[in-house]
Amino acid sequence: MSYQPQQPSEFELITRLTSGLASREDVRLGVGDDCAIMDIGGDQLLLATCDSQVEGVHFTLQTSRHEQVGRKALAVNLSDIAAMGGTPRFALVSLLIPSHLSSEILAQIYAGLRQEAEHFATAIVGGNIASAGSGSSLTIDITVLGSVMRDCAITRSGARPGDLLCVTGYLGDSAAGLFTLLHPEHTYSLAACDQVRRVHRTPHPRIAEGRILGQFGPQVITAMLDVSDGLSGDLAHLCERSRVGARVELARLPLSSAIHTIAHETGQDLWHWALHGGEDYELLFTVAEGYEQQVMNAVQAATGTPVTVIGSIVSVEEGMLLLLPDGREERLSSRSWDHLRG
Amino acid sequence: MSYQPQQPSEFELITRLTSGLASREDVRLGVGDDCAIMDIGGDQLLLATCDSQVEGVHFTLQTSRHEQVGRKALAVNLSDIAAMGGTPRFALVSLLIPSHLSSEILAQIYAGLRQEAEHFATAIVGGNIASAGSGSSLTIDITVLGSVMRDCAITRSGARPGDLLCVTGYLGDSAAGLFTLLHPEHTYSLAACDQVRRVHRTPHPRIAEGRILGQFGPQVITAMLDVSDGLSGDLAHLCERSRVGARVELARLPLSSAIHTIAHETGQDLWHWALHGGEDYELLFTVAEGYEQQVMNAVQAATGTPVTVIGSIVSVEEGMLLLLPDGREERLSSRSWDHLRG
Repeated sequence: MSYQPQQPSEFELITRLTSGLASREDVRLGVGDDCAIMDIGGDQLLLATCDSQVEGVHFTLQTSRHEQVGRKALAVNLSDIAAMGGTPRFALVSLLIPSHLSSEILAQIYAGLRQEAEHFATAIVGGNIASAGSGSSLTIDITVLGSVMRDCAITRSGARPGDLLCVTGYLGDSAAGLFTLLHPEHTYSLAACDQVRRVHRTPHPRIAEGRILGQFGPQVITAMLDVSDGLSGDLAHLCERSRVGARVELARLPLSSAIHTIAHETGQDLWHWALHGGEDYELLFTVAEGYEQQVMNAVQAATGTPVTVIGSIVSVEEGMLLLLPDGREERLSSRSWDHLRG
Repeated sequence: MSYQPQQPSEFELITRLTSGLASREDVRLGVGDDCAIMDIGGDQLLLATCDSQVEGVHFTLQTSRHEQVGRKALAVNLSDIAAMGGTPRFALVSLLIPSHLSSEILAQIYAGLRQEAEHFATAIVGGNIASAGSGSSLTIDITVLGSVMRDCAITRSGARPGDLLCVTGYLGDSAAGLFTLLHPEHTYSLAACDQVRRVHRTPHPRIAEGRILGQFGPQVITAMLDVSDGLSGDLAHLCERSRVGARVELARLPLSSAIHTIAHETGQDLWHWALHGGEDYELLFTVAEGYEQQVMNAVQAATGTPVTVIGSIVSVEEGMLLLLPDGREERLSSRSWDHLRG
């Protein structure tokens, strides 16, 4: 019963441990989405999410500067608030520090956290530091609280056949950035390399974009989540929660010029990065048919971030499909990163 | 600059890392009390606290059953909500699991967590599980959110000279319980041993008591915190935040009959346990003079929990004093448990 690579995944384990939790009126949404949604009165709903970053699992101090580690640890949580259409408000930061870590490094990580928090108007209201023992990894565990106007919260579960599938920004840059960090033996164009590494090290949570999408309400933006596990993995989550299938058109996936350059220089498959690479922290969402142009224009006008229609929602029986440029269709399977399976 | 036993304490480090955080209107109280207090509109204020329990530092799976570890990990956070006069509402649970941990043990820990959550009407709304690597310790990091009516939140900082110093329940039982677990070579009276071990393994957060105290408001209950680090250590926190001193009368400290029995059987100093032993999770609070009887009666009537006046607040110049039964007075110094100094 010990954790072997093929033992229960993180998702299966959470589902098993939390199954049968009693439902309550003040809990609008519990475990299983990007955030929990709670009602404590007033005109806003409360959002909460927690995520931890473990050295050696989610980051290494070899490939990222210390401030970058701090910034990203907060950014991944802010992204979960964005994925509900919410506004981040408060953060609680729990640090587990191994005995070998210098207080100088810790101060740099915390400086990154504070920088990111200030940038997104999030107040650090709680702090906790514990020694994790000498053999342990540095762990940054963060809870972010946010708020969202009633009727503006977007969950993963409202997508319907006929809805259009959209994504903000570009896909795959983070995976390409990680590749360049793990493969210093290649020669890279400086500008392209800088860009994909920046996306990997300091992803930009789509707070402003998420809020605009939330303002359309769940009748227009029927489902949303952030791309943390990779397009195929997160689309599978959306399909599962909404009980639908999806057809993705490969030729429509938004790719940066940087990813083209890096793929060309290394001979790597950029479609693999775009389809399965994690940690882009873009927003993946579904739009009721007929509203797509209005939604794209609103996001672009307010933030400058492009929105791309990459496919559509189909019935659950059809499953997840990938339309290739030559017209063939194949099954799109999730190759989600699982922190327990590694 | 690496962490040596005499390097910055947890408190110093948190203070340093979080100094100069911008103040905001929606943050009534940030880092430095039992909970943060936030205002997101409505008739209640939001409370949040996070604390982690690390195997080998805060607990061992040798001295506690797995469900007990889960119960206590939540209880210590619930106690922080109680210490503000609040009601716990929601919990987010982040687990860091070493690869050797069986899923059976994990399920038992989670069952304890759920049991404690149900008992205190707290909904588990978020879950996160990450692998902590093979050399790491099991870590349970929990954020609890609560609410409190406006004007019922009690902080650490309102105590004034002349106020009476009070505590719920009994002091030192947890330290005595830990002693019996670490010293199996002694012979113990079964009932006494059971009682002090129960306090140590599954402390009972004083939620009901805290709410009643909160209802008196900060004009009557001028300051409050929970006894997690030990009476001397937590009193030092209260004095520091309120900028006052305190005089504790040793003869008034509330001691259970069980602690007398265990001390007698082992030759240990029960006053040391009562003054400096941590993890009792009783409420330590100050009452405006003249209200003490009313407060004691209200708590006792509603919960059955005794409240004892153990001293009074004096000026900051007098510092922390201990009045001995023979009339002598000595300086009371904090021997607070520090998780970084060990």
